[in-house]
Amino acid sequence: MALSERVKQILSWYSSDNPGTLTNLARMLSYGTLAGSGKMVILPVDQGFEHGPHRSFAANPPAYDPDYHFQLAIDAGCNAYAAPLGFLEAGAARFAGDIPLILKLNNSDSLSKLAEPCSAVTASVKDAMRLGCCAVGYTIYPASGARNAMLEALREIVAEAKEHGLPTVVWSYPRGSGISKEGETAIDVVAYAAQIAAQMGAHMIKVKPPKENIEQAEAKKAYEKHNIPVKTLADRVRHVVQSAFNGRRIVIFSGGEAKDTAALMDEIKGIRDGGGFGSIIGRNSFQRPRDEALKLLRDVMNIYKGKP
Amino acid sequence: MALSERVKQILSWYSSDNPGTLTNLARMLSYGTLAGSGKMVILPVDQGFEHGPHRSFAANPPAYDPDYHFQLAIDAGCNAYAAPLGFLEAGAARFAGDIPLILKLNNSDSLSKLAEPCSAVTASVKDAMRLGCCAVGYTIYPASGARNAMLEALREIVAEAKEHGLPTVVWSYPRGSGISKEGETAIDVVAYAAQIAAQMGAHMIKVKPPKENIEQAEAKKAYEKHNIPVKTLADRVRHVVQSAFNGRRIVIFSGGEAKDTAALMDEIKGIRDGGGFGSIIGRNSFQRPRDEALKLLRDVMNIYKGKP
Amino acid sequence: MALSERVKQILSWYSSDNPGTLTNLARMLSYGTLAGSGKMVILPVDQGFEHGPHRSFAANPPAYDPDYHFQLAIDAGCNAYAAPLGFLEAGAARFAGDIPLILKLNNSDSLSKLAEPCSAVTASVKDAMRLGCCAVGYTIYPASGARNAMLEALREIVAEAKEHGLPTVVWSYPRGSGISKEGETAIDVVAYAAQIAAQMGAHMIKVKPPKENIEQAEAKKAYEKHNIPVKTLADRVRHVVQSAFNGRRIVIFSGGEAKDTAALMDEIKGIRDGGGFGSIIGRNSFQRPRDEALKLLRDVMNIYKGKP
Amino acid sequence: MALSERVKQILSWYSSDNPGTLTNLARMLSYGTLAGSGKMVILPVDQGFEHGPHRSFAANPPAYDPDYHFQLAIDAGCNAYAAPLGFLEAGAARFAGDIPLILKLNNSDSLSKLAEPCSAVTASVKDAMRLGCCAVGYTIYPASGARNAMLEALREIVAEAKEHGLPTVVWSYPRGSGISKEGETAIDVVAYAAQIAAQMGAHMIKVKPPKENIEQAEAKKAYEKHNIPVKTLADRVRHVVQSAFNGRRIVIFSGGEAKDTAALMDEIKGIRDGGGFGSIIGRNSFQRPRDEALKLLRDVMNIYKGKP
Amino acid sequence: MALSERVKQILSWYSSDNPGTLTNLARMLSYGTLAGSGKMVILPVDQGFEHGPHRSFAANPPAYDPDYHFQLAIDAGCNAYAAPLGFLEAGAARFAGDIPLILKLNNSDSLSKLAEPCSAVTASVKDAMRLGCCAVGYTIYPASGARNAMLEALREIVAEAKEHGLPTVVWSYPRGSGISKEGETAIDVVAYAAQIAAQMGAHMIKVKPPKENIEQAEAKKAYEKHNIPVKTLADRVRHVVQSAFNGRRIVIFSGGEAKDTAALMDEIKGIRDGGGFGSIIGRNSFQRPRDEALKLLRDVMNIYKGKP
Repeated sequence: MALSERVKQILSWYSSDNPGTLTNLARMLSYGTLAGSGKMVILPVDQGFEHGPHRSFAANPPAYDPDYHFQLAIDAGCNAYAAPLGFLEAGAARFAGDIPLILKLNNSDSLSKLAEPCSAVTASVKDAMRLGCCAVGYTIYPASGARNAMLEALREIVAEAKEHGLPTVVWSYPRGSGISKEGETAIDVVAYAAQIAAQMGAHMIKVKPPKENIEQAEAKKAYEKHNIPVKTLADRVRHVVQSAFNGRRIVIFSGGEAKDTAALMDEIKGIRDGGGFGSIIGRNSFQRPRDEALKLLRDVMNIYKGKP
Repeated sequence: MALSERVKQILSWYSSDNPGTLTNLARMLSYGTLAGSGKMVILPVDQGFEHGPHRSFAANPPAYDPDYHFQLAIDAGCNAYAAPLGFLEAGAARFAGDIPLILKLNNSDSLSKLAEPCSAVTASVKDAMRLGCCAVGYTIYPASGARNAMLEALREIVAEAKEHGLPTVVWSYPRGSGISKEGETAIDVVAYAAQIAAQMGAHMIKVKPPKENIEQAEAKKAYEKHNIPVKTLADRVRHVVQSAFNGRRIVIFSGGEAKDTAALMDEIKGIRDGGGFGSIIGRNSFQRPRDEALKLLRDVMNIYKGKP
Repeated sequence: MALSERVKQILSWYSSDNPGTLTNLARMLSYGTLAGSGKMVILPVDQGFEHGPHRSFAANPPAYDPDYHFQLAIDAGCNAYAAPLGFLEAGAARFAGDIPLILKLNNSDSLSKLAEPCSAVTASVKDAMRLGCCAVGYTIYPASGARNAMLEALREIVAEAKEHGLPTVVWSYPRGSGISKEGETAIDVVAYAAQIAAQMGAHMIKVKPPKENIEQAEAKKAYEKHNIPVKTLADRVRHVVQSAFNGRRIVIFSGGEAKDTAALMDEIKGIRDGGGFGSIIGRNSFQRPRDEALKLLRDVMNIYKGKP
Repeated sequence: MALSERVKQILSWYSSDNPGTLTNLARMLSYGTLAGSGKMVILPVDQGFEHGPHRSFAANPPAYDPDYHFQLAIDAGCNAYAAPLGFLEAGAARFAGDIPLILKLNNSDSLSKLAEPCSAVTASVKDAMRLGCCAVGYTIYPASGARNAMLEALREIVAEAKEHGLPTVVWSYPRGSGISKEGETAIDVVAYAAQIAAQMGAHMIKVKPPKENIEQAEAKKAYEKHNIPVKTLADRVRHVVQSAFNGRRIVIFSGGEAKDTAALMDEIKGIRDGGGFGSIIGRNSFQRPRDEALKLLRDVMNIYKGKP
Repeated sequence: MALSERVKQILSWYSSDNPGTLTNLARMLSYGTLAGSGKMVILPVDQGFEHGPHRSFAANPPAYDPDYHFQLAIDAGCNAYAAPLGFLEAGAARFAGDIPLILKLNNSDSLSKLAEPCSAVTASVKDAMRLGCCAVGYTIYPASGARNAMLEALREIVAEAKEHGLPTVVWSYPRGSGISKEGETAIDVVAYAAQIAAQMGAHMIKVKPPKENIEQAEAKKAYEKHNIPVKTLADRVRHVVQSAFNGRRIVIFSGGEAKDTAALMDEIKGIRDGGGFGSIIGRNSFQRPRDEALKLLRDVMNIYKGKP
């Protein structure tokens, strides 16, 4: 099937990249229910590592099994499935070629207490190649005192991935001694986090849906002076997308904590109306029974398709 | 001798691995008294390094000699013998081909006081190749503030070992500033430790038998909400095995401190009833006179063979 | 077009460098409105990374777009355009060959709080080659406790860049526990910062316009004893240029915070009168509407051309 | 001259090692007055680095000269001479082939105060090859908080040395925040230090003569429960030798601070009676006039030869 | 011109070195006014980096220019000229072959405050080769808590330099938390600093002229017990030279702070009378007008030639 015009347009924004990297970007944009639309819904399952198996999978015990998530992503028509090394290794051979895979290259857990947040690098670009992945993922915590270690590792990963024809998806989650807890989702901080990821060479950027508060005093002056609209979620998403090279980088939004379906759908509409490129929905999907999850993901995709 | 069906099934869970790695996994599963059963009893002797020679070997002085342990593992019909570099080097030539060997690549001692627990890397994958080993072993302390150093070293070891056809056994022992002393064997923490090791790409995972207490407040909510059974050791072992990719990773349990035989046998039965894959029994074997140790290991293996 | 005599003279100061490095230096000196004059005006746009997208671009929203800055630098007749990896990657293919590019290899942001200032390395010499750049840029913070990390990274970058025929531009911005806030632009400190950059092997050095105050007691004695003139900006610029190998290294001056046009023009005249080699003007250009920015840059260049 | 039976027996303990390493071990065991006896007396001269030249050599000024020590070791019939890079480089060409050399690869000095003791690596295996050495030496401080750095450097040195056919001599000197000052020579700590060195792959282990005190509470229980004899020096030496793989690693003992001859001879007898493999005697030899030193070393060797 | 007998004798002390390294050592010993005498006077100009341009060059403004120092060293008949990367690069092509060059590979500045003194590595052995140098220089601060980092970097530099036929000159300047301010030039500390540099493999050692005080209590005992003479500068220089392998390493002395000519000449005589190998004179030469500097250096050389 030929690439859609929209996908071609998106690829044109990455004109410094080699054909291999563009090919893998195209694969993800051209797979699943939203294929060709320029919108994406991705299934991420790193919560077993990040929050523990009980908090992640006990709500829906079949989800303890790594195969479950491959199948869920396929059946739901997601654009890609993202997970840490162990989860991907467990199913990559069985599901080879069935669904674009994103290997998350670093992870935190909830057992250790570090002075400044910094995920451990837990897999490599070579692992991604070996497992047939379409992209690598990497989490940075802007506002952490461990910034340099994280950005410098990311820089090397982006470069190595590019050489192997793999785009990089950056989870840009502000956290650490530089900001308050509320500041982690403040509009100025989320927009800044998107900018940092874009400047680092990320092909796709994942941020949290921003709230209306503004964290930094200097930023507040800019928002007031230039009347940047931040009232509605759509306003804020538009500002974040603009902050990622004026909309020329793919920015998707996380679903965040498990919440009720109506609230989630409202959020998705806000993201769509603000020009967001899609969603990455983990706990809100795999922690529900499979049928409910499939329906929910279908509903989300319908919103991105423009159905009211 | 052809592989047993059970061993073939277990190997199928590691379908991303190369034939070399599967071969060594098969070797360990097909050796000794429990060969082909899918159960394993391993003799580990790293206590000389970890606790000191006097605390480890004075109870049974022949055990000061490295050859003693090779012979004990062979005569007892263990699946493998695991030890640090020095102990393996001392006997690897004499016992070459007689017993599958696991080289422990890192170790702690009880003389140093580190701010956060973190074993020193004391041997390499190359050493394991040179000595004819079937696997490498590596200890992580989830909950340590030195998490990133340990996980990042493990990641490189797993990758290098795989390339050389060696599976990795991870000792996953939560310890450090992130949890309490009691929390080290709490059911939520042990299950989480098994998950982390699995996500890191471990082929075999060694944890301590979990207790009934729950360490983390967030985890407690999940256990209560979803009624995860943790009353009996069998319940808890079942939950830990489930937490390691729904039973698709080999999880074995340590014998822990030297204890009386009856208590140990009860524990082994609990592990068996919960679907544990076996035991790794050090102090409870080599600190007894050789005849007693051989009998004890035989009794343990009988339990795993399903004899009441 | 043959090189001007002045450019040939400037190149003669770098006689230890290979022809590749001299060629790229010549390219920047021979491009744009000031081509051949030995003076330079460079457009730098790293503020999205360093201060955030809102504080940088909301004043002139077209500037959110990476292409905007390439075009601005071209149309204004700048000698070069300098930016971080993401911004250059976004336009390097489209504007290939249109304007000399300087890839900034390290960057800070305003979200993290580090104990001592130290930019993260965010791109490499290889990236600069891949993107067709004429030079690499690197920021050091003399007076930071992280000095050794920064200088040692710079040393390797300078060496690698040279081998690839790329000159290095050093942003030498004193900052950190060694000096006071006012000391960052003190004349003794700025002159010292220029010297350090020159000794490190920088081909071009960027400093802030120095103020009249003197930070260090030992330095004060030298200024007084030897009557070094520091009253006017021209005096101070002359002293800074002298401190960079007696005027045999290219020293340019930043425009600093956005300010009114008259004040900026006075500053430029001071730099010119003191023998400065030019200016690097970011916020004062791209935060104005495009037409005003083009006029302003033209006016600045006229001053360097010697028009009163 | 054919190897003695005893030397052949000792080499058999190192059956995992390549012929090159065994050859160099045999060279040291077959050189000098004690050749073939399985006992060794080594001259070490690192005190210039460790304590300063004045404290080391002023007592016998010819000892300032590096050649002095080569000649002393030769004339005294020592098995080997051990020293840091500078001392060996100064004489290695002149004395090439005259005496087995051990290059000490790390050293401390008494000027710096480090938070935790950790010698600096001051030479390499390549240097040892270049200078014609028979072995390399490396000091660890078990009980130091810098344990991991030291053990991980040692691991790499042991591996590299083996590949080049060089055995490794480990100075295992407990020191640091994990133990008390008295604990540094406590019997449990010295035995533990010998075990750690053996587990790390050391071919020869150097410890201090142990005292009767026991440092660690857990160890004390083991000594009492199992009635480990530690009353006489011979008892303690026997226990330390047993702790190094049941006597299957070469353990030698340092002479320690300069002391009177009678006390030293008593100590040597205790080491001999406990089955120690020999002594490494620095200050007690080179700080005496040459004739006295030669006599003393001859007397020591006579004790090891079994003369009362 | 054939090498002098004295130079041949000096080279014989470095018999472990390859011909390339000996050749470059011979070049420096056979150049300039003192050629062949075994004495050396070297011009070092790193003060621009270490103290700032104003404190270094304002007293004699032509000295801002890098060419000035090459010419001064040539015209004064110095044995060599030593400087950091930037200063050497600026003139190495123009003065190629005119004067032996020593590239200083590390440097500090006076802007940063580090917890423990440790110079940044600012150039490489490769740079020295590229620029036609005869030697590399490296500064260590014995008594700094950063000892291990410095010594380990030095070890690698010495080894790499040797492989390329370059001798290493070590500036051994005790400084840091291990000693008092007065202790930096105490006789015991300076003698110890010379020993450390020699043990590290330095070919030439630069120390400060030692004072009569003794810093370390343990050292004091040795000086008193063995009646080491330290009353006159000549006594102390003799002891320092003895501490550097009994006079078999080249030890030269710094001129220190700018001082009046008579005091300087007295100091030089003391160094000569104690058997010092020469001087390295920076501020006392280049901070005077050129004619005075030439005369002063000539006078110094005359002293070393034995003129009263």
